[in-house]
Amino acid sequence: MARFEIHPQLLADCHRIGALSICHVLLHRKASIPWFILVPETAVSDLLDLPEALRDAVMAEAAALSRFVKDVLNWPKINFAAIGNVVPQMHLHVIGRQPGDVCWPAPVWGNLTADREYSAAEVCEMTRLLAEHCGLKPDANEVVT
Amino acid sequence: MARFEIHPQLLADCHRIGALSICHVLLHRKASIPWFILVPETAVSDLLDLPEALRDAVMAEAAALSRFVKDVLNWPKINFAAIGNVVPQMHLHVIGRQPGDVCWPAPVWGNLTADREYSAAEVCEMTRLLAEHCGLKPDANEVVT
Repeated sequence: MARFEIHPQLLADCHRIGALSICHVLLHRKASIPWFILVPETAVSDLLDLPEALRDAVMAEAAALSRFVKDVLNWPKINFAAIGNVVPQMHLHVIGRQPGDVCWPAPVWGNLTADREYSAAEVCEMTRLLAEHCGLKPDANEVVT
Repeated sequence: MARFEIHPQLLADCHRIGALSICHVLLHRKASIPWFILVPETAVSDLLDLPEALRDAVMAEAAALSRFVKDVLNWPKINFAAIGNVVPQMHLHVIGRQPGDVCWPAPVWGNLTADREYSAAEVCEMTRLLAEHCGLKPDANEVVT
């Protein structure tokens, strides 16, 4: 079977940091807001078109990531979305938010244009925290760029 | 037990058209894009904080609504989101999209400011279609405004 390929636009926007049981985990490069993207290995584009059991399993991984953002990173609120108007490959946004953050109360999409990016050390630390708290399996060959 | 109250901002933005088994169903007043909002009766704010069984049941209703938008209204793509930065009461967006629609490919939030509104007859027809295809129980006392 061909290796699953993550869409190049997602790889351009994000650090690929590893995988949970079902989903690849990407960390958006913009560092002011903890913005994760889950990519399940499926050819289906829309979350709500997934077979029920797979949808529920994907949502369980999103919920685990949400708890991580709240309990470990200490962001009180989560925005969750499956949009995919630009990148058709299914990808789910799990985004920490708090009143007063850099684009509060607007959604992040299109509103987080100028922002600092994570350092390599910060990406490594986020990967370590996700491995410790969520069972993330880091991508062995990922080069932090 | 006190009757569940839908947040006044949602009622200002939407027509309240009925309920499925778990969620109240609202139809956004802006008529260029089929934009539904599901409101489950819960005091929890974030979708991903719901207990698993309730989360799965809410997602099943969102999936039924998504199939309705695709199969009956003939919109090919769904945007799904739980944001809630402005209105803290949990509400889930199920939005039909297609290339070339009035704000494609941008998300609708903040990008659908000028738009015509549904007529009363159109709201009645949408309610009838949802009753026929999704088992919507129309709100008996809803006055279409």
